[in-house]
Formats: sequence, C-alpha cells, structure tokens
Amino acid sequence: MSTTINVPPGLRNVVVTETTLGDVRGDEGFYHYRQYSAIDLAKSKTLEDVWFLMFEARLPTAEERDRFVAELAPLRVLPDEVRAVLPAIATAGPSFNPLAGLRTALSLLAAVRSLAPLWDADPVRRKADAMLVCAVTPTILAALYRLREGQEPLEPRADLTAAANWLYMVTGAEPSAVQAAAIEHYLVATVDHGFNASTFTARVIASTGADVVAAIAGAIGAFSGPLHGGAPDRALASLDEIGTPDRIDAWVRAKVSAGDRIMGFGHAVYRTEDPRSLMLRDIARGLGGDLVDFATTVEQRIVDVLAELKPGRNLYANVEFYAGVVMELCGLPRPMFTPTFTVSRVIGWSANILEQSTDPKIIRPIATYVGPQPPVPVV
Amino acid sequence: MSTTINVPPGLRNVVVTETTLGDVRGDEGFYHYRQYSAIDLAKSKTLEDVWFLMFEARLPTAEERDRFVAELAPLRVLPDEVRAVLPAIATAGPSFNPLAGLRTALSLLAAVRSLAPLWDADPVRRKADAMLVCAVTPTILAALYRLREGQEPLEPRADLTAAANWLYMVTGAEPSAVQAAAIEHYLVATVDHGFNASTFTARVIASTGADVVAAIAGAIGAFSGPLHGGAPDRALASLDEIGTPDRIDAWVRAKVSAGDRIMGFGHAVYRTEDPRSLMLRDIARGLGGDLVDFATTVEQRIVDVLAELKPGRNLYANVEFYAGVVMELCGLPRPMFTPTFTVSRVIGWSANILEQSTDPKIIRPIATYVGPQPPVPVV
Repeated sequence: MSTTINVPPGLRNVVVTETTLGDVRGDEGFYHYRQYSAIDLAKSKTLEDVWFLMFEARLPTAEERDRFVAELAPLRVLPDEVRAVLPAIATAGPSFNPLAGLRTALSLLAAVRSLAPLWDADPVRRKADAMLVCAVTPTILAALYRLREGQEPLEPRADLTAAANWLYMVTGAEPSAVQAAAIEHYLVATVDHGFNASTFTARVIASTGADVVAAIAGAIGAFSGPLHGGAPDRALASLDEIGTPDRIDAWVRAKVSAGDRIMGFGHAVYRTEDPRSLMLRDIARGLGGDLVDFATTVEQRIVDVLAELKPGRNLYANVEFYAGVVMELCGLPRPMFTPTFTVSRVIGWSANILEQSTDPKIIRPIATYVGPQPPVPVV
Repeated sequence: MSTTINVPPGLRNVVVTETTLGDVRGDEGFYHYRQYSAIDLAKSKTLEDVWFLMFEARLPTAEERDRFVAELAPLRVLPDEVRAVLPAIATAGPSFNPLAGLRTALSLLAAVRSLAPLWDADPVRRKADAMLVCAVTPTILAALYRLREGQEPLEPRADLTAAANWLYMVTGAEPSAVQAAAIEHYLVATVDHGFNASTFTARVIASTGADVVAAIAGAIGAFSGPLHGGAPDRALASLDEIGTPDRIDAWVRAKVSAGDRIMGFGHAVYRTEDPRSLMLRDIARGLGGDLVDFATTVEQRIVDVLAELKPGRNLYANVEFYAGVVMELCGLPRPMFTPTFTVSRVIGWSANILEQSTDPKIIRPIATYVGPQPPVPVV
C-alpha cells in the first residue's frame, strides 16, 4: 500500500501545480498576471489586451488586438438554440439567480456546439471553445437580466469596448466614457487571482479531460458559494444597513459579537490592504458623490474597529467593498454585480483550464476512512 | 510568508479529508460503504436501502425503508418548468449528450426550486435538496433519451423498484425480474468508490458553501472527462471492434503499440481484480448468451496479453467491462450506459456533499508561479 501524505485541512499551502498565469503575494499586497502587475495592466490596458495576454502569454501588438477583437465580435452573439431557451431560464424560480442561469445556458451551449473534450482536442480547438465561452458569457448574463425584468435582450454591439458593451447590454444605455473606463479597470483587475476555490475546481475538472464548459460550470458553482467571496452587492447591502456614519461602530460591534462575517473585509491571502480595493477606491473617488464619501468613512471606521476587536488579523477592505460602490455609480443594478465579476473571471478560469489541459495528470487526492471498521456482516 | 508544502503531482496519495462514507482498498480488491462490503450490499440490499445507508449512516429498518421509498416517489416526478425545457435540451446539438443534458436540467432545477446554499441551510434542508436531485436524475436522463429518439417521456412508476423503474422509463417495457435484479446489483455496486475526481470536485464545490446542484453539476463535468472512467459503452465498442476470438491478440497488441488505452481494463486504485468486475461477470454469466461467452474469452486473453506486454502493472478488467455486457443484456441502449452509472453515482456524490457540508473549511490549495518574474513594466 502506498504511503499516504497528510497535509493541513483544506489543502492549505499545498502546492497542487505549477503555473505561468500569475500569482498573489499576500504579504506584499501584490498580484500579477504573467510577468505584469495586474493593477498596472488594469490602469493601462483593455480587457481584450489582458484576455490575449492570459491566453497567449504575451501582450498583443496593435494589429493582433484588432484581429482578436474582430474574432470576438461574432462569438458574442447568442446561438439560436440558446436564445430560444433563455426566457425559460431567466424566469425560473422565485428569485433571480444569474449564476445558475449562466451555468444552465452554458451547459446547453456545450451540447449545441458539441464542444470537444480537452483530452482529445488540439490546442487550437481548445482555445476556440474557451474563446466562445468567454465571449458569450456577458451576452447570456445581460439577456437573463433583461428577460427577468420583462425586457427584450439587446444584441451585443461590436462598436463598443467589452466594458462599454457590458454596461450597454445590461442597462440599455450607452455608458459615459468615465463609466466605461471604471468598469474596464474593474474587469481587468478581476480576471484572475491565484488559486481560489473556483479556479481550482475548474482545473480539477479540466484534469479529467472534460470539455471547457464542464470545467466552467463547476467553477461557476464554486464561485456561487458564500465562502468563496465575489459578491460586491453584499458589501453595498452593509452600507445600506449602516445608513449613517454615527451607526458604524454599533453595527460592526454587533456583527462581531454575533460571530457574523463583515462582508467586504478580510481576505484568504492578503495580510495587507487589497491592491484591488486601493485601485477601486481611487476610481470611486474619481466618480465622486455622497455614496463614495460615506463608503470611505465606513471603510476607515470598520478597519479601525476590527483592528481593535480582532488584533493581529490585519482585516482590510477587499475587492468586494469598493467594487459595489463603483458598480452602483456606473448604473449597474445590484443583481448584476456578481455577474459583472463573472464576466472577467470566466477569462481567468479559461486560461487556467487551457494551462491545465497541457498536463496529462488527473488531480485525484484521497480521503482517510475514519468510520467503523469493515466488513461488518450485512443483515 | 507561509511555508508551502510540495506533494506528488495530481495530489496523489494526499489526504484531503476524513470520511465515514467508505473506502477502496486497492491492494485487497475490496471496497466498502460505511462498515459494509459494497459487494455484500449489492448482493442483498436494494438501491434505496443503500441510499438510506449513505445518507443516514445506518441501514433502514423495513418500516424506515417503506417510508423512504414513499418519500422518494413524488420527488421523481419532473417539475413542470424543467419538463417544459427538456425537449430543447434533449435535441440540442449534433449528437446526443446525456451528461451535458442532465447538467443543464439540474442547473435549471436549482433555480426553479431555489436550492439553499449548503452554508446557510440546516441539515434537514440540505438532505431534502440532495434527495430531490438524486430522485429526479433518472427521470431526467430517461426523458432526455426518449425525447432525442422522438418518443414521449414516460412518467416514473411508484410500483416499481428504482432499478426496474429506470429500465422501464428508458426502454418503455417492464423489465424481467432477472434484468431488474442485474441492474439493481450494478447500481448498488456503483453508488460510491473512494475519492475519485468527480467526488473530489463535488466536495471542493461543497466546501465553498454553494448548493447541492452547484456541486453535482461540477461532478457531472468531471465524470464526463475521458480520463475519469465510467463509460461502459466504450468497453462494449471494443468487443465489437475485435469481432471474433481469433482477432483478440492482434487487436490488443496493435492498441498497446499505438500507445492507446484499452478501455475497460486497469484502474487507478486496484492492483487486483476489480471486485465490481467479478460480481458483474457472475451476473453476466447468469444472464447468459453468446455475448457473455465472447466477453469472458476476450477478458482472459486481454489480461494475459497485458501481463506479457506490461509486466508488473496488474491490469485487470475494471467496472466498465462487464457493466457494458450486463446493460446490453438488460436491453439498455448504449447511449444510456454512462447515464446508468450516473443514476447511482449521484447518490454517492450527494452523500459526499452532505458530509463535506459539515466541515466549515474551504478547500483551497495553491500553485507555484514559474513564469518570468514580475513586475515587468507594462508598455
């Protein structure tokens, strides 16, 4: 019998693979895509540039970017077989569940397009399948929202950037340049972020040789988990709950006494301020208004109270906190906050899936049986 | 910075959790559910008995079993919102993909029924959600098949056992007692089997606190991967390809020279004969006929040739090989072989999800970045 290897619970700090996609340096408050600071990329590159970087391991030339954008345009359009079922998906159930809806629609798409198993497909085919999934995801999510609201879905517009098109497809209005830039910064900054549970899920499924959607559908499921994070609307809901600056302290103390988590604060990896939060705070300030002033007051006070109540834990605002503020100021409805995160993260998942598909080894750990010893006779 | 822990590729032999659900002893050719030999259970208990065992950690009394069966009956019936979309799901794409179809339909069901996140839900609610998913899975799969074939789906019949009802819903005919028993043995024997990639996927997703369907949808994706195994039709396709006993040797040698895998042989954990294969061989012999005679001849010859060509590898027939033969003899169409595996395995996945949901720790390993060192200036 092979020797088993015991590791900390939850595989914490256990290295499961090598990657050239990027990393998070939790102690430095720094993360990167390939060899570039993700925040630097967010401040200077388009989503398509960074998408190309993640898939091709280098930034595109101007000509390559134009070709990439042109390739994407037709992929954004909903296939008829998916379009036909979207109304039923959008209106299913008592409450709108855009992540479940996206998973359902992509799952259908996998059958419609007969996606190739990663194990069999050549690299060109694998990449084409991943491109399709990433390109059509915003169209699906926006259509689900509009259908749920009783409106007609809007066709994607090839004359808009990915970020502006996203805002347009959701809200029905062409965004201002400032709004489009704010959301583009957000999207680039959230494409990837180390080996979180959804990314890991995508890679485990990809390691079986299944198709891209099989892996993405699993990642969406993990992403929907309350312990995963990635729900900027929860942070904004806290701002609503607090209401006025004089109530901040009481609210935080009550939450902490009750053992509740404070949404929008703390992170599994960062022990410093979250670099995404810092960038988004600047963007929020650029957009301006009462909400931003209130949010910055709340942030500072929560950090101070948490430092007092949970010394040594280094709890700071995470990506959720200012993301919610920025999205609100850009006119996104709250049910579409987490879907906005998904629009960018699906690119990161896909890059991870493509990287995993070059490794022929299935990911298959073991469990230790700790129940009563068998065999007990069956009676 | 925390110390990272290096382990073998693919997390091989790395213990990710404790379980009381069961285990596989690869060197002994033995596997168990709870404290019972799975093969003993398959030979003497119904699928519902074992389902109860996996969910409740003990075998039911006769009264408990009756109540359990009565509880299941209404859960097998398709909700209207899912029923309405099944024709579109069944006919999507150029080829029938029942696993993608099941994933799509369950994903829709999650929204329709507004499943509770595992993290929030009480144990009763979690179990109810898992019961629903396991109960409706055969109905969905059989309906997808019949719709693809241009036939009306059949309503589940509460007067039949789970196994007989499965055969009935797929084929439209009430099976013989011998056929129903053969499939029931198969279903019980394939409910669970250690920490394979689909089970692990389900547990990773469950560890985020997502809902039962989020985890099952991921597991289905992993299960669909060619490296995962679980496709009894592939083994039967090999029998067709070989055709006659005199061609066995040439066929095996050609496969091995080409570096192809021989479907239905070899297993990630067993170094002995697969106990499921042994049981299924006996069942196949009981059903009898030319196919069984040919299959046993092929099995013995393949084992011998593999022993010669790959000494020390201990390659034996796995669960796929005789499963395909048994299913064929029970009248199941080949596209429904892997779905039959899914009918039982969804119970094992669910039991794993319920067990994982009692552990508050998210499963989140890390990756080592091995690309060019950042930060390189973005230009």
